[in-house]
Amino acid sequence: MHMKKLTAGKLKDGPDINIGLVGLGYIGSEVLRLIVLQSDYIMKKIGRNLKIKKVAEKDIASKDKTVKKYRDIVFTDNPSEIINDPDIDIVVELIGGINPAFEIITGALRNGKYVVTANKDLIAKKGAKIFHEAEKHNVDVLFEASVGGGIPIIGPLKSSLASNNISKIVGIVNGTTNFILTKMQENNLGFADALAMAQKLGYAEANPASDIEGKDAANKLAILASIAFNSRVVFDDVYREGIQKISISDILYADELGYNIKLLAIGSEEQGRINVRVHPALIPKKHILASIKDTFNAVYFYGNYSGEIMSFGRGAGDKPTASSVVGDIISIARNYDRNNKHVIFGCTCFTEKQIMPFLETSDKFYILMDVIDRAGVLAKIAAVFGSKSVSIQSMVQKQASAHGAARLIFITHNTLNRSLYEAINELQKISVVKKIINIIRVEELEG
Amino acid sequence: MHMKKLTAGKLKDGPDINIGLVGLGYIGSEVLRLIVLQSDYIMKKIGRNLKIKKVAEKDIASKDKTVKKYRDIVFTDNPSEIINDPDIDIVVELIGGINPAFEIITGALRNGKYVVTANKDLIAKKGAKIFHEAEKHNVDVLFEASVGGGIPIIGPLKSSLASNNISKIVGIVNGTTNFILTKMQENNLGFADALAMAQKLGYAEANPASDIEGKDAANKLAILASIAFNSRVVFDDVYREGIQKISISDILYADELGYNIKLLAIGSEEQGRINVRVHPALIPKKHILASIKDTFNAVYFYGNYSGEIMSFGRGAGDKPTASSVVGDIISIARNYDRNNKHVIFGCTCFTEKQIMPFLETSDKFYILMDVIDRAGVLAKIAAVFGSKSVSIQSMVQKQASAHGAARLIFITHNTLNRSLYEAINELQKISVVKKIINIIRVEELEG
Repeated sequence: MHMKKLTAGKLKDGPDINIGLVGLGYIGSEVLRLIVLQSDYIMKKIGRNLKIKKVAEKDIASKDKTVKKYRDIVFTDNPSEIINDPDIDIVVELIGGINPAFEIITGALRNGKYVVTANKDLIAKKGAKIFHEAEKHNVDVLFEASVGGGIPIIGPLKSSLASNNISKIVGIVNGTTNFILTKMQENNLGFADALAMAQKLGYAEANPASDIEGKDAANKLAILASIAFNSRVVFDDVYREGIQKISISDILYADELGYNIKLLAIGSEEQGRINVRVHPALIPKKHILASIKDTFNAVYFYGNYSGEIMSFGRGAGDKPTASSVVGDIISIARNYDRNNKHVIFGCTCFTEKQIMPFLETSDKFYILMDVIDRAGVLAKIAAVFGSKSVSIQSMVQKQASAHGAARLIFITHNTLNRSLYEAINELQKISVVKKIINIIRVEELEG
Repeated sequence: MHMKKLTAGKLKDGPDINIGLVGLGYIGSEVLRLIVLQSDYIMKKIGRNLKIKKVAEKDIASKDKTVKKYRDIVFTDNPSEIINDPDIDIVVELIGGINPAFEIITGALRNGKYVVTANKDLIAKKGAKIFHEAEKHNVDVLFEASVGGGIPIIGPLKSSLASNNISKIVGIVNGTTNFILTKMQENNLGFADALAMAQKLGYAEANPASDIEGKDAANKLAILASIAFNSRVVFDDVYREGIQKISISDILYADELGYNIKLLAIGSEEQGRINVRVHPALIPKKHILASIKDTFNAVYFYGNYSGEIMSFGRGAGDKPTASSVVGDIISIARNYDRNNKHVIFGCTCFTEKQIMPFLETSDKFYILMDVIDRAGVLAKIAAVFGSKSVSIQSMVQKQASAHGAARLIFITHNTLNRSLYEAINELQKISVVKKIINIIRVEELEG
């Protein structure tokens, strides 16, 4: 269908944009519904119609209701019917995972189609190959939904903020772990209870490993860091610690010291090298990231002109994710010209920066340990820290966990991770230290 | 200069983009510096060079240092030398105010040039005429810097979030008033002292009327509401109250009740009509907008797919504003084709929605009054509220301000502004009420 001239349409009215949707799961179904339900609204905004021409779904038999409802859409179980359809302009990949998503995306690009995806795994692991293919065929891959669900982050980084050198990104990019940590703090729950609560509410999967071990966040950080620092960062470049070892004691002690504990995804550029890590951290309560609760996500970054910027919202869920997927489709559809394709944002990895070896990066640490409660113990511990150049900022003694024991919390000054690990190794050998209970990084966020 | 093929440039290398900059004040000078200092970086990202060809500045004599430093730029005191230069692709208007900015922008558009501006006054007051001119000549006006300084708000609304129906916007969009309210609360200062502090630090002007009376915020809200609700909203449509009447008592009482006081810019769509207002409001401390301190800005909105979204950052200052101005230039420059101009985002005001008369809108209120301290007084006041259908949610009695007086704080349920004003009018007539001290709206923000 060609559209009529609108009263106040500002973009050139153009022919329909034909979309091929691969994957009709939780997200794919919502993208389908959004495009159908908001079609008049979108047409008024961009002067053309988004038409879902074909949908490929492996398990098409189980989608019988959808198939019956949308009679003008061709349903198939074979993605190549989409990739090889010369009428399809944009392929939307929503099956996730590496294979066959990689083959579907690169196949579509080779056929000169634009691609929209929410696939963080794939972009974080095979982004370079995908963007190379897009460039070769003068089209583009948009992936706003891969980080932060419905929150616009990648678009603003690539457009409004494009003139900025970004020095640091700090993100709360996993809603499951943020929910668990929030409930541990607010409801005084242990990790296992908070995880069970998240699972009951559908915020954590039966196998929660990818979230709680920080893998999901590491994928997102690899994507963000690649854009922010203009150099390819992949999942394996990211140092990673999950939240499994955070106890309610850590949360309470942190609280007393003026901190909240959050799982952070942090990327920074330091003297031309990139430092990327996902780990829990104590952050000052007065920093705005400490206010990000429950399943909300937020990405904070520092631009040399913009200053501090934070984007906040719903980092997951079918509707927010569909919002970003369709936003990308709209960015392609505006001014789309089948006969004059062009790269929209392009890949911004135009330099190659080294990844800093994690042991050579520096952090401030919270160290919780039980020691023997007698005179001279502190001097022995201080001597070990000193011998490894770990400088202590403060020490608090808490009520003993057992008779004859004292519980100590050290906060260090900034120290090399290598030195810290060496000091901990030494401390574990001396008899006055009963147990090193936990070591968590402290991020004294500014702004 | 034409640029060489870059190793990893993904967009087509193209000829220079010639920029004409009108206004070399605080912001204009920073835009000039940014484009010069970040030129290599920008070229790597977009495959072409941003070249400032001409700068027009009324008071060019005072800019002698700049004129001498940038010898390849033509400086003039006459903006028509820019508007009528056939080589100039983008005109950047940074003089502010209505005239001659309006004539410069429309003149540039008529000559087929794209326009970037930070001029909130002009867009909020004459947006319709400007976008009409842009449409006629198949070009576009971008104005990210007009709202929220360096924070990407307009771009995301027009692209990543374009498929959403936005039901509500709540913004803290004026840094001066947010600084004053923050200092009143944190440092226990009166309004006059906090204003003096803001002036001393350069956050408030010698004549602070535009900020503290909410005019600056009303301009910004008119712009945001026009985009969010797809219908033209102008400055005069916005109901407006400033922060001049907020006292330290209000702040302390609000604090006790669990609220912070913020100057909010609120737009909502209610049954097809638009409700737009700028006024101080009590907001729950647990809502993330309550965490926005000092001169920071934030815009919170609700999309029917995205859910809650908030953008946060520096809402003013030369560098943040320059970041957004250059971001807009980059959005135009990418894929710019002098022989095939096109509307980039276009005007999104494709419908006409009515503005709700303010008296017909509803609010929840905080009402502070001194009354005579004797039996039966409360019954009389309650009777007046009841007669005007104002329903009271809670009442707190505070220490009397004078002998024989009692201080009362009422929090109402949601009530028509018309009814509230009628009730206040009646209360002022009855002898038991000594003084209605203040009336402030309460926004029970969700999410």
